[in-house]
Amino acid sequence: MAEYYLDDSVIQPFWDNTVEPRLEIESGDTVVFECQEANGQVQPDWTVAEYENVDRSKIHALNGSVWIKSAQPGDVLEIDILDLQHKGWGWSAHRPGMGLLPEDFDYSYLHQWRIDGETIYSTELDHISLPYEPHPGVVGVAPRESGRFSTFPPRANGGNLDVRDMVIGSRLWLPVLVEGALFATGDCHAAQGQGEVCVTGIEAPMTVTMRFNLLKDIKLKELQLRRPSPMSKLDRAGYHITTAHGPDLMENAKNALRYMIDWLVDNHRMSRSQAYILCSVAGDLKISEIVDAPNWVLSFHIPLALFK
Amino acid sequence: MAEYYLDDSVIQPFWDNTVEPRLEIESGDTVVFECQEANGQVQPDWTVAEYENVDRSKIHALNGSVWIKSAQPGDVLEIDILDLQHKGWGWSAHRPGMGLLPEDFDYSYLHQWRIDGETIYSTELDHISLPYEPHPGVVGVAPRESGRFSTFPPRANGGNLDVRDMVIGSRLWLPVLVEGALFATGDCHAAQGQGEVCVTGIEAPMTVTMRFNLLKDIKLKELQLRRPSPMSKLDRAGYHITTAHGPDLMENAKNALRYMIDWLVDNHRMSRSQAYILCSVAGDLKISEIVDAPNWVLSFHIPLALFK
Repeated sequence: MAEYYLDDSVIQPFWDNTVEPRLEIESGDTVVFECQEANGQVQPDWTVAEYENVDRSKIHALNGSVWIKSAQPGDVLEIDILDLQHKGWGWSAHRPGMGLLPEDFDYSYLHQWRIDGETIYSTELDHISLPYEPHPGVVGVAPRESGRFSTFPPRANGGNLDVRDMVIGSRLWLPVLVEGALFATGDCHAAQGQGEVCVTGIEAPMTVTMRFNLLKDIKLKELQLRRPSPMSKLDRAGYHITTAHGPDLMENAKNALRYMIDWLVDNHRMSRSQAYILCSVAGDLKISEIVDAPNWVLSFHIPLALFK
Repeated sequence: MAEYYLDDSVIQPFWDNTVEPRLEIESGDTVVFECQEANGQVQPDWTVAEYENVDRSKIHALNGSVWIKSAQPGDVLEIDILDLQHKGWGWSAHRPGMGLLPEDFDYSYLHQWRIDGETIYSTELDHISLPYEPHPGVVGVAPRESGRFSTFPPRANGGNLDVRDMVIGSRLWLPVLVEGALFATGDCHAAQGQGEVCVTGIEAPMTVTMRFNLLKDIKLKELQLRRPSPMSKLDRAGYHITTAHGPDLMENAKNALRYMIDWLVDNHRMSRSQAYILCSVAGDLKISEIVDAPNWVLSFHIPLALFK
């Protein structure tokens, strides 16, 4: 049951099953990953001008890969998320052509956050604060297929899942696709809503501690996990909820989000960009019903505990 | 500020802006609606054989319509949900051609529940119980368009929204489309998960108390609401979560649900039909990310507090 440390001097901004492992471990071992923020370059004093010129070849700045001895295709990698320590800051942004509403936001915007203990403060909006509820956006193993793959879409190997439920105390199960598994992680979020609608959570460098166990003879098609309660520390003052109905889940999602951005701008003193970011880091996009054909109802939830 | 009572001797299983109102009220008044269960005929001793021969012309057995004096198209109807009292029982079912997984469930199944105070007990599974967290599945006004419309899909008039967040203590805002608004409600659920995946919640007759206010000069495109915390009384023992990725939200939803049904059957002593029903009444279908093109991640959440 050894514990290892991987510093953040090397990044792996790709998936490739021929990558040279940084570390070999046994089942039962623990690894501490020092993780850069997702882009491997953003600084707490950056403005939007610097963000617009980001070097996209460094995304996502993952830490790994870890070779798990005796791991074989068909095994399951069990991962306990033991700790996620922030470094006092994080950022969010929207940029052209990305996110759920590229039609509505055709420019870049960068929002910086300060994290103090268990609370996240906006550097622009002094009436907003969030609890620190972190997760790693990316957890993945090497893909079965040969070649070098972008880390942007989630895949059969896991990857950029952005499942906000992978909080401290969670246990994850991920299918192993190649010998040694070749695990990597990063893209840590200090907070994120369901949907990650603007395409970023609160992107933050973190120290990530995970324990790995190898399970044989379990059938698993895609990532599953067990997370602790409560679902959110913001579940204490109720919610404002917008709804949108129609035959297309994606269009409904866009409309429910649009209605919420309008509501935030009209009621809570913020710009449209600030509202879009807030929806991404603290709002939840949900499927209310997916069975009353031909119209499905999506809803967008903002917890009122956000506001002072 | 009068209070009125509408018994359940008349049902309105359609939307039609020429319907004769059962009641005229002023803004500020309260109405108690005695609501039959959604199908207007199911009994606590029914078996699946009786359910297979249900008279579908009575669905949804709504109570209304209520004419709100001085309501005009463009106004907003504000609805406070003051109380939802059950009558000791409810039912759930799946049937061929309906629900999120018609490919997997091509037969009918009926599940009866007993409700005692604030707790719901399965009559088949003695290791399962749920908190009573009710909402009206249908809240709607008369449609703008002429004609008689099915209550099954949600529409611009609201209707079969199945938004589980419309709990006691919620405030709803619904656009008025015709003079008098012509409000009706029903299809009450003693509990329902996000998605209502098998096509029923826990369908239950209820006594519904709502207060109505008419708002002028507010712009509103679709239903919005404010709900109290907590989001669910089951948020106390953590969750098992399945995930599914891919380019199609609907396919991902189906797969995340399939993985959860498998997990329930393998780990918690129940049939596939019982698992499907349990997912519909107590599980939540969520969008984890909808921005990491071309693959979106949907997740299905089962609260572990369900199990003894």
